[in-house]
Amino acid sequence: MVPQVQLYDTTLRDGMQGEGMSLSADEKLRVAHALDALGVHLIEAGFPSSNPKEDELFELLSRERFEYAEIVAFGMTRRRDRSADDDPSLRLLADCFAPVCTLVGKTWRLHLEKVTRVDPEENLRMIAESVAFLRTRGKRVIYDAEHFFDGFRHDPAYALRCLHAAAGAGAENVTLCDTNGSSLPSQVAEATAAVAAEVGASPVGGPSLGIHTHDDAGCGVANALAAVERGAQLVQGTMNGYGERCGNANLVTILPTLQLKLGLSCVEPERLARLTETAHLVDEICNVAPNPDQPYVGRNAFAHKGGMHVAGVVRDARTFEHVEPADVGNDRALLVSELSGKGTVHARAEQSGVALADDAAGRVIERVKALESTGYQFEAADGSFDLLIRRESGDYEPLFRLESFRVIVEKRETGRVETEATIKIWVDGERQVRTAEGNGPVHALDRALRGAIGATYPHLRDLELVNFKVRILDEAKGTGAVTRVLLDMSDGVDTWGAIGVSENVIEASWDALVDSLEAGMLPGRAQGGLAGVTSEGAAVSGR
Amino acid sequence: MVPQVQLYDTTLRDGMQGEGMSLSADEKLRVAHALDALGVHLIEAGFPSSNPKEDELFELLSRERFEYAEIVAFGMTRRRDRSADDDPSLRLLADCFAPVCTLVGKTWRLHLEKVTRVDPEENLRMIAESVAFLRTRGKRVIYDAEHFFDGFRHDPAYALRCLHAAAGAGAENVTLCDTNGSSLPSQVAEATAAVAAEVGASPVGGPSLGIHTHDDAGCGVANALAAVERGAQLVQGTMNGYGERCGNANLVTILPTLQLKLGLSCVEPERLARLTETAHLVDEICNVAPNPDQPYVGRNAFAHKGGMHVAGVVRDARTFEHVEPADVGNDRALLVSELSGKGTVHARAEQSGVALADDAAGRVIERVKALESTGYQFEAADGSFDLLIRRESGDYEPLFRLESFRVIVEKRETGRVETEATIKIWVDGERQVRTAEGNGPVHALDRALRGAIGATYPHLRDLELVNFKVRILDEAKGTGAVTRVLLDMSDGVDTWGAIGVSENVIEASWDALVDSLEAGMLPGRAQGGLAGVTSEGAAVSGR
Repeated sequence: MVPQVQLYDTTLRDGMQGEGMSLSADEKLRVAHALDALGVHLIEAGFPSSNPKEDELFELLSRERFEYAEIVAFGMTRRRDRSADDDPSLRLLADCFAPVCTLVGKTWRLHLEKVTRVDPEENLRMIAESVAFLRTRGKRVIYDAEHFFDGFRHDPAYALRCLHAAAGAGAENVTLCDTNGSSLPSQVAEATAAVAAEVGASPVGGPSLGIHTHDDAGCGVANALAAVERGAQLVQGTMNGYGERCGNANLVTILPTLQLKLGLSCVEPERLARLTETAHLVDEICNVAPNPDQPYVGRNAFAHKGGMHVAGVVRDARTFEHVEPADVGNDRALLVSELSGKGTVHARAEQSGVALADDAAGRVIERVKALESTGYQFEAADGSFDLLIRRESGDYEPLFRLESFRVIVEKRETGRVETEATIKIWVDGERQVRTAEGNGPVHALDRALRGAIGATYPHLRDLELVNFKVRILDEAKGTGAVTRVLLDMSDGVDTWGAIGVSENVIEASWDALVDSLEAGMLPGRAQGGLAGVTSEGAAVSGR
Repeated sequence: MVPQVQLYDTTLRDGMQGEGMSLSADEKLRVAHALDALGVHLIEAGFPSSNPKEDELFELLSRERFEYAEIVAFGMTRRRDRSADDDPSLRLLADCFAPVCTLVGKTWRLHLEKVTRVDPEENLRMIAESVAFLRTRGKRVIYDAEHFFDGFRHDPAYALRCLHAAAGAGAENVTLCDTNGSSLPSQVAEATAAVAAEVGASPVGGPSLGIHTHDDAGCGVANALAAVERGAQLVQGTMNGYGERCGNANLVTILPTLQLKLGLSCVEPERLARLTETAHLVDEICNVAPNPDQPYVGRNAFAHKGGMHVAGVVRDARTFEHVEPADVGNDRALLVSELSGKGTVHARAEQSGVALADDAAGRVIERVKALESTGYQFEAADGSFDLLIRRESGDYEPLFRLESFRVIVEKRETGRVETEATIKIWVDGERQVRTAEGNGPVHALDRALRGAIGATYPHLRDLELVNFKVRILDEAKGTGAVTRVLLDMSDGVDTWGAIGVSENVIEASWDALVDSLEAGMLPGRAQGGLAGVTSEGAAVSGR
């Protein structure tokens, strides 16, 4: 399908400006695949080679296959003191694999005067020459007009000349940026309409218009919508609205609004139905607690409390619900589980090669609900979920039986920290007692456990713990704070998640560790990955 | 002053529909006074006597003096089976002390058909007679037109007749409600303009128009602004956007936007400067963690991370800040990780009351860079950063000296998990050895440590660990994975972050824990919060 509005995600670049945001290259790859599965058209990955981490990311991305998404590299217009083909950053953009490059440049005269101190005419040349250079090197180019709306209010003629410079040099899109989030929807509507009339209406169609907004006045989403209503065909934003200060425009809110309210098709309906799942998965990867009140995808988004409202929903959902929750993959029930439909459970079981009777599927759903009420969440713990299905299907054999474990962490007078773990377990009818040291308690437990069962299950020796995240959940206030541990295990081909929940971080870690190893021994995985894993070693499950 | 737009706060009624919201009558009274101090004009307190708690609240409120605010009682139009003066709820409204009553009623025919099954003509009589009854009893009346925008899209003529019924019976204001948050700003603008032309333009001026919106499509604030731009003179919303599902329109965002961006005066500028403090105080009363990314008042709302942005702010704040932070009582936070110069370090040192020599500032920057390269990140660890400054300034005295600690976590055969921590430390020249149990290793260490030094530093007993996050940083793969622990400590007034980084999660947790306690003893904090705390004990740090 040809989208009526293109979704341009900048989670991996602008989203990372948010407080505390930091992802490894592998994690960024997982986010990119999640965005691709949702149907996002353009994924801005960052600056190529601005540092070793970005370098690794572009290297990884260049070997990856995406179904829909195109990767966008981000950079700035050339420096004022050199020609475009002599600018190291532009050359890196030209040389990188990404088919699309976005160049950010100035359009606000106040910035030229106060910040960069570049002559306005030289700025126009910087824009035109940078775009032209990348065009000659075969790139499609998007021009991000930084502070466009401030610039347009300050000196509209000059702001428009900047757009003309980019368009004239071959940019396929000029994106109007409300960089500091200062604008209101009526201002964005007026300015966008003016640009559409001036720049977007050239004889051969001109470039398309894009919109990039921030939430500093609480209008990030509304500003993006206002621009689309006046002609913008590309919307930049981030997943869950991550970003500097108050965040970027939230694509998770914008996508369903465009599609369900404005009737502008962006992605196939079955992809839109993955919205809730995708939003939460990205939150988990970023170690951000999902906002329960988030429009469309929040746990409370379709929850009803007022008595009159509940009665209304029962009689006719339209009376109190603005969209059908299922259209965005959400649920009317208060305790939302993405896995709570039998269809989903059957599909997942089939994926991992389990024949599941209908009553077993019902038990899986009940079990998921019960566990979720204590703090479990299976969206990012597919390994634990696969095990849960097998336990209910009767097709489950534990690798061992735990008798006890003990972990000691000691910081000595010398400042040296020593950690040892002792486990007592039963494997194949034999009692095994092992002690191992480690960098930390989970490492020591992992080594002791694999030492004890590795001879019986040699495949386990090839697995690597690639991620470990801990968060305190105060959702379960009544029973005291609970610790949730999510960890990812990899066999070098496939990566899967496991979860543990307990008051005690060590016990939660142990539970997640055991799940991650048992999931690694499931048929399909033990032979080198589930169906759907590509030969390039894409570390992405099919969710 | 006569406000150009009236602020109508429904935190105490609609805000209480939010998940987990519940306030005692005393707490509601504190909220009401905070709203009054901010300059809010109308405070909707709830249904009089709908239950004993509301009864107590109205009793308390009736004896209270407010500087600006008027109290509003909320109710519904009469039942269909009785006359207005025979309706118990309307009589309670008429008898209560509040000078203003808001009546909610139907305007959407779909609701009449599907939910209440009331004849449309009878509904018009219910509206008119209920308003008229309260007018004869001396009340000023606001009519809340429930689901107005859905109703207007469905049957505009009937929706307008409902408004006429209320206006004709003497309502001083009709408020257009987007009850299920379904509408977009362009729709609200169009409908409001139509109403203003029809209802608001009667010969003697007609009633004023109000707007009541929700955030289900992420447009709660923008919808309110759109209505004001088309003639609404009263805005309903809640503090911090509390409310059912995705929340109500956030008055904390709307007020500064109306006043600073649309130039519509609502409150005196010195009251607007209390906005941040008030928003956080109400969060504290409601036991809600302040949203760090909240427009205008969030801790990150004026924080800058990108190098270019920081340079711009230093040269001319207008280049990257949409309003002056002080106008809303907030502060410019320069995120520590991007500390680009000594000026920022000096500013931060000054904020926490340390005189820092120039060479010491240089050492702070070097130290931050060195620590960041090993995985530290100070953005969310202001407590650790304050300590770092003091260490380099020479103005630092550790609370104790660690000799050693040992943590044992044991899972027994019974399945029971036991955790104990033993610490050996020197405090004031004396050796202290303590052992404590806990829910987990950090809890046990915390209890042992506070047990050992609590007698010397009694203030530490009042501190509460409010957040704890762990993640593995694989950025530093070469030297093995590193664990980063971030925790937040609070004294009930102020909250600060601390960080620890180590291969060992227990050691990282210990380091963060010690920092968080030492930061809690810094001058300013130990006396109950940093400068900026009001005499009422408003829980607002200057961050």
